Amino acid sequence: MRNIKLSIEYDGKNYAGWQIQNNAVTIQETIESAIASIVCEKVVLYGSGRTDAGVHAQGQIANFKTTSLIPSLKLILAINSVLPKDIIVNEVCDVHDDFHSRFSAKWKVYKYTVFNGRFRPVLNRDFCHALKYPLNHENLKLGAEILKGKQDFSAFKTGALPDDDNVRVLKRLDINIEGNYLYFTFEGNGFLRNMVRRIVGVLLELGRGKIDLERFKFIFKSKDPILGKQTAPAKGLCLMEVKY
Amino acid sequence: MRNIKLSIEYDGKNYAGWQIQNNAVTIQETIESAIASIVCEKVVLYGSGRTDAGVHAQGQIANFKTTSLIPSLKLILAINSVLPKDIIVNEVCDVHDDFHSRFSAKWKVYKYTVFNGRFRPVLNRDFCHALKYPLNHENLKLGAEILKGKQDFSAFKTGALPDDDNVRVLKRLDINIEGNYLYFTFEGNGFLRNMVRRIVGVLLELGRGKIDLERFKFIFKSKDPILGKQTAPAKGLCLMEVKY
Repeated sequence: MRNIKLSIEYDGKNYAGWQIQNNAVTIQETIESAIASIVCEKVVLYGSGRTDAGVHAQGQIANFKTTSLIPSLKLILAINSVLPKDIIVNEVCDVHDDFHSRFSAKWKVYKYTVFNGRFRPVLNRDFCHALKYPLNHENLKLGAEILKGKQDFSAFKTGALPDDDNVRVLKRLDINIEGNYLYFTFEGNGFLRNMVRRIVGVLLELGRGKIDLERFKFIFKSKDPILGKQTAPAKGLCLMEVKY
Repeated sequence: MRNIKLSIEYDGKNYAGWQIQNNAVTIQETIESAIASIVCEKVVLYGSGRTDAGVHAQGQIANFKTTSLIPSLKLILAINSVLPKDIIVNEVCDVHDDFHSRFSAKWKVYKYTVFNGRFRPVLNRDFCHALKYPLNHENLKLGAEILKGKQDFSAFKTGALPDDDNVRVLKRLDINIEGNYLYFTFEGNGFLRNMVRRIVGVLLELGRGKIDLERFKFIFKSKDPILGKQTAPAKGLCLMEVKY
């Protein structure tokens, strides 16, 4: 069987997330159906991670096994011809049999976009979280510094259990400001459920002065998922890249 | 009567352009209705220019006269509260009685976005023109140089007549390349009908090698609107700023 790796871009707005569900349209199902119609056999698509409903991707990675002999260049054109306009496969390649998009992943890069203007954003409205309150950029950056490195992120996980391994390496958390936009770039060896959106949510509480830096540290160190539960909306989040 | 100036951002996708028409929803009509519902009188909104169906704006300027005494800060909040999600007023201010958004304008800035990748763009699909053919960036820039300055742009006008004054000053035509995207920035003292989209259309013919630089020069110098009729799609165009 061939093992085929895909790099996928999608606008998550109209989907109930990556993972297949009953009674809801998902990215995984939509792409699996597209592939099946081309290779003429049922396939299972393994994603590098499950993006939530409404989350976007520029570089989601997935793989599937197939007996099809269609060359990869033809395969990508054929699959794209049947995908809807909000999903595209940008790369297809044959990989070693052992490759698994999720288990082989070393680093993932997410970007979270915040619009911090006086009014609603219009042109970019489906790809950012809009927040009117003035934000203290200095405090945001101090908060971000605290999170870097190999640490226990239980406080920022939905459904964390004491027995889980909630330690992850957050190699990068940059905050870039351009006009009314703030871009939070996360790079880590793995992310707990809702971790990026929860971190952004609590950082924004810090940025607007609802909590101070001491409280932010306390929430993080408490490892208590009840304390870090401010979750920023899905539409601001985009999975940018998965490194192997 | 007060004379009120607005700075407006809109996603033109679902509108038949700026100017009021029978049997089609336009930006002008939508904003006029919103204002009328707040100031409780009929108003006429004068735009700095008519954007075509599907063209976007980040900084369209318009003005209207009113007897209303609502302070401008309250006015902007009230108008925005009744506008649809694809239109927003970002600034409102009282201006001198003589101010006219169109006749007082000195310079206008437009941006045209081209996506030049192998496949369809997804995340930005409503705001760019996608072109697969490889483009010669050097030739694009040489072509752009030819157009700068005070010149007759008849070749790039829809509905040009020999008697019209088709001379305009094109102060700036920059082409910036970032990854798969090309951004064409135009700044001029005025633009003929479809001029930006026609210039981009013909420049792209040059960039992909369908015409050479001599032919491009010939088309421009001919002042013949039949020769320069390759019009790039509306969705790639955005009115960025109007200077007074």
